[in-house]
Amino acid sequence: MGRGAYHHGDLRRALLKAARCLVERDGPGGTSLRAIAREAGVSAAAPYHHFADRDAILAAVAEEGFGELAEAMAQRARRVQTGRALQRLQAAGVAYVGFAVKNPEVFRVMFGGLLGDRSAYPALQQRAAETFEVLAQLLGEAGKPSAGRALPRASLAAWSTVHGLANLLIDGRLGGPPTERRAAQAARDVTEILGMGLRTLADAGAPERS
Amino acid sequence: MGRGAYHHGDLRRALLKAARCLVERDGPGGTSLRAIAREAGVSAAAPYHHFADRDAILAAVAEEGFGELAEAMAQRARRVQTGRALQRLQAAGVAYVGFAVKNPEVFRVMFGGLLGDRSAYPALQQRAAETFEVLAQLLGEAGKPSAGRALPRASLAAWSTVHGLANLLIDGRLGGPPTERRAAQAARDVTEILGMGLRTLADAGAPERS
Repeated sequence: MGRGAYHHGDLRRALLKAARCLVERDGPGGTSLRAIAREAGVSAAAPYHHFADRDAILAAVAEEGFGELAEAMAQRARRVQTGRALQRLQAAGVAYVGFAVKNPEVFRVMFGGLLGDRSAYPALQQRAAETFEVLAQLLGEAGKPSAGRALPRASLAAWSTVHGLANLLIDGRLGGPPTERRAAQAARDVTEILGMGLRTLADAGAPERS
Repeated sequence: MGRGAYHHGDLRRALLKAARCLVERDGPGGTSLRAIAREAGVSAAAPYHHFADRDAILAAVAEEGFGELAEAMAQRARRVQTGRALQRLQAAGVAYVGFAVKNPEVFRVMFGGLLGDRSAYPALQQRAAETFEVLAQLLGEAGKPSAGRALPRASLAAWSTVHGLANLLIDGRLGGPPTERRAAQAARDVTEILGMGLRTLADAGAPERS
């Protein structure tokens, strides 16, 4: 089968792969549907079988990214003995930062303001919520944070810590392009301090826990 | 004096003000030297008296932003009684997040990868380092973190926490555009947990302290 003759599902996958490749190479701003079609070796019209516009394919790239991020966090946490909650959280935090460093531009698409009105992409919203849920579960939170109420502060602190470190690293604020090893060490450092804070919070009988 | 006849220093200030206004309105990507000149009411050639190109004026906007951020943090911290180190740090963290929420696009320019090789802008580097120094001083760190060595982990944890929260807020990840009040509450929540962690670290006799 030639490159121009994909099966339906294959075409979508090929387009996503091409989009992701271009996003990492040129940044999300440098990616067009036309360039994605060229990269995938299909006609300029082919992407429209699956995606309404460039934002729709970037949303799909972001959705895939959230899936991988959630899986990486869960997988790394599973390697730590059950019951060692803080170490499991720390492992997930290292995975979070590691994902950002390995996929900086996809990470920017996932979190950046590029996609405009996110409510246009419910699947992306759902996948992002599931990713957050991995963190929340590791924090031992009962129940899902519902849309209307404030995020439990332990979850917010954990997310802020790893997200801030990830951004400082990929923006080169901590001295040059980060190596995975240095990123992992920094992630262990900051999540250790976070863990100390969370332990104190738990010991104090945090009122938000049900 | 007409708008087209600025004194030397006034022209620079007018250009910076125009650039900042456009950055906040259209994002850094939508800002050109030509548009900045138009906004300032001067000829298209006038910006070149002060700035080599668009990146140079964005660097100046970022530099100004770091100055304001440092001042806001220091000012907010000064309002808290001396000796209450964690509360002072928390106040500075609230100021950090507040600055980001009030100036989201300038904040993106300050930290984003937009400026390429930052070593081309030593004044910006210097101002950014001074801003970080405010945090480091509040953490009771002795001496400046030198370029070669890893940031002390307490500083890194503090910076990561407020930087992550700021980014999650301005990217709308915590549900819609943030109000200043909600941002301040979230900043107090996360820095409180950070503070608990830092206290534990200090009690344990953190080996990094000299």
